[in-house]
Parts: sequence; C-alpha cells; structure tokens
Amino acid sequence: MERRKFLKAAAGGTVGAAALATPALAQSRMDMVIVSTWGRDFPGLGTSAQRLAARIEELTEGRIAVQYFAAGERVGAFDSFDEVASGNAQAYIGADYYWKGKHPGWAPFTAVPFGLTYTEMDAWMKFGGGQALLHKLGDEFGIAGFPCGNTGVQMGGWFNKEINSPEDLKGLKMRIPGLGGDVMAKCGASPVSLPGGQIYENLVSGAIDATEWVGPWNDYFLKLYEAAKYYYWPGMHEPGSQLSMGINAAWLATVPENDKAIIIAACAEENAAQAAETNYNNGIYLNKLVDEYGVELREFNDDVYEAFGEASTEVIEEAREHSPLSAEIYDSFLDARKNVGLWTNYSDAPYVTKRNRYLDL
Amino acid sequence: MERRKFLKAAAGGTVGAAALATPALAQSRMDMVIVSTWGRDFPGLGTSAQRLAARIEELTEGRIAVQYFAAGERVGAFDSFDEVASGNAQAYIGADYYWKGKHPGWAPFTAVPFGLTYTEMDAWMKFGGGQALLHKLGDEFGIAGFPCGNTGVQMGGWFNKEINSPEDLKGLKMRIPGLGGDVMAKCGASPVSLPGGQIYENLVSGAIDATEWVGPWNDYFLKLYEAAKYYYWPGMHEPGSQLSMGINAAWLATVPENDKAIIIAACAEENAAQAAETNYNNGIYLNKLVDEYGVELREFNDDVYEAFGEASTEVIEEAREHSPLSAEIYDSFLDARKNVGLWTNYSDAPYVTKRNRYLDL
Repeated sequence: MERRKFLKAAAGGTVGAAALATPALAQSRMDMVIVSTWGRDFPGLGTSAQRLAARIEELTEGRIAVQYFAAGERVGAFDSFDEVASGNAQAYIGADYYWKGKHPGWAPFTAVPFGLTYTEMDAWMKFGGGQALLHKLGDEFGIAGFPCGNTGVQMGGWFNKEINSPEDLKGLKMRIPGLGGDVMAKCGASPVSLPGGQIYENLVSGAIDATEWVGPWNDYFLKLYEAAKYYYWPGMHEPGSQLSMGINAAWLATVPENDKAIIIAACAEENAAQAAETNYNNGIYLNKLVDEYGVELREFNDDVYEAFGEASTEVIEEAREHSPLSAEIYDSFLDARKNVGLWTNYSDAPYVTKRNRYLDL
Repeated sequence: MERRKFLKAAAGGTVGAAALATPALAQSRMDMVIVSTWGRDFPGLGTSAQRLAARIEELTEGRIAVQYFAAGERVGAFDSFDEVASGNAQAYIGADYYWKGKHPGWAPFTAVPFGLTYTEMDAWMKFGGGQALLHKLGDEFGIAGFPCGNTGVQMGGWFNKEINSPEDLKGLKMRIPGLGGDVMAKCGASPVSLPGGQIYENLVSGAIDATEWVGPWNDYFLKLYEAAKYYYWPGMHEPGSQLSMGINAAWLATVPENDKAIIIAACAEENAAQAAETNYNNGIYLNKLVDEYGVELREFNDDVYEAFGEASTEVIEEAREHSPLSAEIYDSFLDARKNVGLWTNYSDAPYVTKRNRYLDL
C-alpha cells in the first residue's frame, strides 16, 4: 500500500476534516518513491534515472516530492517490479524485459532480437499502437508504463574466443537476459541473467564465458575489457533497448491531471536524452577501448547472423503463442518492423553507409 | 515590443500598485503568440507545430496562454523570424536554415549536406555542445532556440529525368533550400527556395524541373507524384532536418523559471514525437506512392554521391569561413559527425542492413 493512502486510512474518520482544513497542502505535495534496476551514479543508465527523478520534482515545482533509490538501496534490482505493483513504491525505472517471466509480453517493450532500433521503437510506441499495448499489459499488474530511455543498438558482447560459425556458440555460458538469451539457448549456448553489478566478477572468475551489457560507453565503466578480448558487433539481441518508468496505476490515478501530464512529458524528454547521451558517448568510448585497452573489434559474419535470425523467429513465435494479449503485442511490434523497417532501407542505413564511405569514417 | 511589456510601460507609475493588487493574475497568465513556417493542419510539419502550441498551454495549466498562427495567417512563412526578433510575436516554429542569409551559422541547426541524422543531431544538440552554440548564435538576434521536431533522413527529391551521372544535374532548376541548394549549385544546377505551399504549382507549370520536400509522408500530401516521375533516395542534403522553436529572448526572460522549464520540456517531447510520427508514416506512404501512383524509386549511384560529397565539403568550408562564430558552430558539428558517425558504423547501419537482409525487407 502506498504510504499516503496508508496514513489516510489509518487516520480513519478524521481524514475528511483534516483534508478540509488543509486543502492547499493536500493538493500541493505528493510523495513519489522511485526504485531502480540501475546502480547509483552508474554513467548512462544510473545517471539518466536520477536525472528523470529530479526533473519530475523540478517541473512540478515540488508538488510531486520524489525520493529515488538506486538498485540495492531499498530493494534489489529485480525486485523493483513487485515493490511498485504492491504499492510499496510509486514507480520503478528499469528494463521491462526483466519481467518476461511474469509475462512474455513485457519483452518487446525493451527489446526483441531482430527487432526495432531506437527510432523505429519510438515510432511504434508513439504512433503504431505500442503505448496503448503497454498500458493494456500493465493493467494486468496495476502498472502504468512510459518509455524513459533507450540505449540504441547494443554491441554483440564480450567473448574470449572468436565466433566464426554458429558452432562456436555451442556450450558458451553467456550473460544475456530477455529474449536474446532465449535466442542464444536455441543456438546451443547457456544464457544466464545477472544484474550489471555482478557481471564483472562472474566473467573474471570464469563462472561465465561471455557477456553482453550495453555498448562502448556503459561497458567501459564495467571494465569488461579486463576480462574478455573480443568485442562483437552489431548486437542482434537488443537493437534499441527501451527503458521504462513503471508507475503504480492506483497511485497515478490520484495525481492531478496536470501533474500526470508533466510526469509523462518528463519521461518523453528523458527517453530522448538518454538515447542522445548514449549515442554521443559510444563513439568516443569505442575509440578509448581500442586505443587504451587494445580491445579487438569483430563483426558477426553472415552465417552467424543467419543462425541468430532463424532462432529469433522461433523465439518470437513461442512468445507470441503465450496468450491472446501476447499475440496482440508481438503482431503490432512485427507490423511496425515491416513498415518502419522498410523505410529505414531507404533512409538512415543507406545514407550513413554512403556518407561514411565518402568521409572514409 | 512584447504586448505585456508595452502595457506595463504604458501604465507608467501605476504599474507597481496594480501588480500588488493582483499578484495572482499577474503571475498566472502570460500571452505567447507563436507564428509558424508551416501551413495550417499540414500533416506532419503543421500538425506537429499545433500539437506543441497546445501542449505548452496544457502543461502550464494555461499560465502561458498560447495563440498559434500558421504560415500566412499573421505573417508569411519566411517573415516568422523577424516577427519574433522584433518582439511582435513571442516565438516561431520553423526550420532555422531559412535564416542562413542572416547568418550561415543557422544552417547546421536544421541540416547540413552530408551532415547528421536525427539521432546524431540529437546527440550533438544535447551532449556535444549544440544547444549552447544555438544560444550563442541566437544571442546575436535576441532569439532563444530549442529543437522541437526532426524529419529524419529526407528523400533526394522528385525528378522528371533520371540522374545517372553528375552531368545530369547541370542546368536543372530545382527547389532546394539551405546548404543543399548551395551543393546543387556547385553541381551545376540552379537552386531556388520556395515555401511548401508554392512547390506544386511551380513544378506543374515547369517553372522548376525538380524539387525536394521532406519524405514519403509529407510529400504525398503535396501531390508531387502528379508532377514528377522519379523519386530519388537517399537524400544527401537533409539527413536529419531539425525543426526549432525560436523564442524572443527578452520575453523568455520574463517567464517564471518553472514555466520556462516546462516550455523546454515540451519542445524536447515534441522533437521526438515529430520524428517518431514521420518515421512511422514514411514506410506506409512510400508503399502508397509506389502502389497507388506508380512512382518509380531510384537510388543515387556512387558517382553522383561522390559529386555531392565533394560539393558539400566546399559548401561547409565556405560557410565555416564566414566568421569566428560560424567556424565554432561548424567545427563542433563536424566533430560530432566524426565521433557519433563512427559509432553509427558499428550500430544502426550494419544492424538494419543485416536484419533486413535476413527478413527480405
């Protein structure tokens, strides 16, 4: 139960009189506890979540009083969802594919292998029906979700051996969550899911053979270059991982319309800012990884990508078959991939290729 | 002079007393007249501008009372800048490269040939110093600018003959504004600048031989397919055209900090929404143009792109040499192209190419 409601309920019959006595105070300040799946001050994911928390308080002039807890400060990263669904906290900031065990429909709201890039995802969410479906799924758990970040196309991951054919994936113990992990399982690997804070120690100890995390900027700060030699691109598993603010729906219904609109605008603003920050830093940190630490870049070849593609088609179909709602979500997502993906063929992909060839980039 | 200031000044010595008598009213409502370079209800550009105008009023609960005038309703499209710089209106929504005659530094805040895509542009503006430079340039004109839309990679344009070599560009009368027009001039064409509402009639009458506008969605509604047969891709001239809200800086300084923050957040929200809407619709309308109107798609070949590239390098260098501020803006822009552009080589471009090849898109 949400704290304010609890206090009101505990006060019993006196609530009405108290509310009448202090209408300005009652309307002007609401507590919003935000828990997160990201570590305190972690560059990129952590700092973005903290920026959004502060922005909501700023834009509402403190009418929404925000308390932010990074992963582990109030609950563990993977307990964020239950903390909000139960009403103990008002919102989480995280990646919705962490909840795919609760419902496979959550995965497309972060990333699907062979799915949408950041701009394609944003097109689907805002104009292709994605946001309405996120609400429809969230209704089953009492969560109202809004996009609030996007890491863009992720790197394929860190490996200690070269991946020259699909055979090389067999037996690999790899940290890779979400549906990307299911794809790797179909390719013969053993996927595990670990929060960011536990990846380095597991890779160094040999408990896992390989890992993906995000991209050059975020990965640099996990020091993954100390534990693995080859850095593969492009990732097929998370081509535009969206981050979400999941808000307790019952609490949100008590927020005045204007402040609710401001929360939504703040999420939209941070969604683009987080994507911009990641894109801006990835090129700079890619150079650092190569120049300072001798990281070797490797491109997944066509044979390996073909295997990923076939496995992803199976994984998507299995997730789709879970329930009518799951089918509705995946069908809408795949429809966007077809329409927006077609456009990408004539726009960003060929333009960047031609421009960079001329510039010798 | 801005109306509110004028009223205050006209009231002379009585202003202080009046303000004291009605502090709530004085603080709670400010008029914001917005003029635009886009036509009323024009799908994409026009509807996005109207959505932003309404959103500012909504998020400020009417403390900012917005009146929106489409192109021609108060001033002509290309008079928007002067209307705001003079204080007759409080803000314009438009494309800043329309003002490149006032200062060539305005162009990179919309688009530069062989420049940045939407995601690269957003990275530069938000984290690569772009926003600070937009303010520095705006300071010379009394304008505070904020990005509020992006059309993504534009199509190369509508032609009545095939462009198979750089020779085919010579003598072509083409509607193409900004630095893209300068590139075409270097290639031997005769560029002209026309507002959207005048393109169709000029193309049908033969006053121009070719035109670019935006992309499949926006172009569909101008019925350009009736006047030209070949639709070329990818455009080199506007790879991620950013739209801006330019606000009269003296007026903005009178807006309370909180409402100023809300205006900025609303611009950021619409910046992403406009990009998402354009990307969502471009694939759908590209299919319509081909299936319903028999439009023929053509790819600019490597020879033509090489010519565009060489001309763009000269055009950028000339704009750069205009003044120290121009050099500062272009150097920052080119630095972002190098760093973020490098990252695009390993992320969006190869991912989409590999994914779409597997999907046979």
